[in-house]
Amino acid sequence: MSSLQNIDRLSLNQITTDPWSLKGAVEGSVRAEVPWIAIWRHKIEEIGLKESKKIIQDAGIKVSSICRGGMFPAATKLERDQRIEDNRRAIDEAAELGAETLVLVCGPAPDKDLVAAREMVAEGIDKIVPYAKERGVKLGIEPLHPMYAAERSVIVSLAHANDLAEKYSPNEVGVIVDVFHVWWDPDLYRQISRAEGRILGYHVSDWLVPTPDLLMGRGMMGDGVIDLRPIRLAVEKAGYAGPIEVEIFNQKIWDMPGDDVLALMKERYLQYV
Amino acid sequence: MSSLQNIDRLSLNQITTDPWSLKGAVEGSVRAEVPWIAIWRHKIEEIGLKESKKIIQDAGIKVSSICRGGMFPAATKLERDQRIEDNRRAIDEAAELGAETLVLVCGPAPDKDLVAAREMVAEGIDKIVPYAKERGVKLGIEPLHPMYAAERSVIVSLAHANDLAEKYSPNEVGVIVDVFHVWWDPDLYRQISRAEGRILGYHVSDWLVPTPDLLMGRGMMGDGVIDLRPIRLAVEKAGYAGPIEVEIFNQKIWDMPGDDVLALMKERYLQYV
Repeated sequence: MSSLQNIDRLSLNQITTDPWSLKGAVEGSVRAEVPWIAIWRHKIEEIGLKESKKIIQDAGIKVSSICRGGMFPAATKLERDQRIEDNRRAIDEAAELGAETLVLVCGPAPDKDLVAAREMVAEGIDKIVPYAKERGVKLGIEPLHPMYAAERSVIVSLAHANDLAEKYSPNEVGVIVDVFHVWWDPDLYRQISRAEGRILGYHVSDWLVPTPDLLMGRGMMGDGVIDLRPIRLAVEKAGYAGPIEVEIFNQKIWDMPGDDVLALMKERYLQYV
Repeated sequence: MSSLQNIDRLSLNQITTDPWSLKGAVEGSVRAEVPWIAIWRHKIEEIGLKESKKIIQDAGIKVSSICRGGMFPAATKLERDQRIEDNRRAIDEAAELGAETLVLVCGPAPDKDLVAAREMVAEGIDKIVPYAKERGVKLGIEPLHPMYAAERSVIVSLAHANDLAEKYSPNEVGVIVDVFHVWWDPDLYRQISRAEGRILGYHVSDWLVPTPDLLMGRGMMGDGVIDLRPIRLAVEKAGYAGPIEVEIFNQKIWDMPGDDVLALMKERYLQYV
């Protein structure tokens, strides 16, 4: 199976180098000649949108996505409306920074009712689609691993993300395929194929064995058990030729010098992705 | 929704009181008037099958299941054949102890190839069905939570367990519904309904928030976010009226005196299950 021949599509999801500020991550990417970056909103907040935009434009780096919108379910209408407002700000940030896609992490249930929470997600997406369209930003629903169902997202399968996305045009709403979240799914290849023309992002990392921690247990590509290449090829067959983000929450990686992380990430990207 | 009115169907899955030996767990259950127990094979091994059988018969307690057979995938044919042999011994143990069902935890992949491992699971089940039938033991495929896909089982959804089970008569192969493993699944109620007449066991516990650990993070019913009652009612609507096992891996619960665990388990069973 064909490996990637260069890093033209490689994107640093900046959580992989979490100790770096936005400026640090942009400068590090430029030094490493990584052409794309995915920006987290709490990093924008530290310095403001205007300064963030200037740093990105001056560096000439491309923004693959903004992480994250979503978090729709809440106990009261007031809170749900506030979440919609926050999603509008996220859409603004994506538009200002030239990101084609806002990643949606849809949020947990406020109580034990998953069905109701999933309805709130559908309603929330529906409410922000017109504004996203107006600002030229696509919404990418990212199904999370089921182990995050209680704390991060009630959308935990690519099938479900596809169900939600298919109500809209692929120019409005699509899905994000992150290997860490979906690799286990016996329905994975069928759902990737079903998402044809609607995949808005592809994220890589690895599943470590033994798995050290629910949140911080992701590994660098090649260090775990995910058979990465066939998933990328399936995603490409489904029409996705965009940036490939490396997104890793892992304390050991965060403890490494950022430049070393990027060097390792480039090497593993060519070898395993 | 109707609560349970008595503990006639309550079963102590003995991992919930792991510090107890088989004898300790049986005696504790008798003291607490819990009528069923699920036995783990490593506890049988400590004292032998003959002694285990005597303890259970003398106590007059019913065995809801034996945990566990399965673990089919392996790198070589020799190893896979050894696993089949081990499953035959597990079937013998279930038959001797009067357990209607052997629970199958199907095992992880020996490498990165999930598809091949899943085929090994299908082949493994196929190989043990005749012997299980001969010994009057049903095989219950238990889908595990996807977070165990790398280390414990490549069968991680009830849909997939149903796919495997449906090749056989419900008297031969069925499924085990454990809320901890399946509560997150948007397809859960449809798959429970699909399993009609084929559910061989129902296991309860709870999903704690925050989730302390992948393996040891299960909680007592009522301490987490799983909406237990509608799942039980769906399982009953699908024809299951058998024992309900409480199966909890949790160090804090293991550190409690066993009698206190059983008292709490009984209380929470009536309140939440």
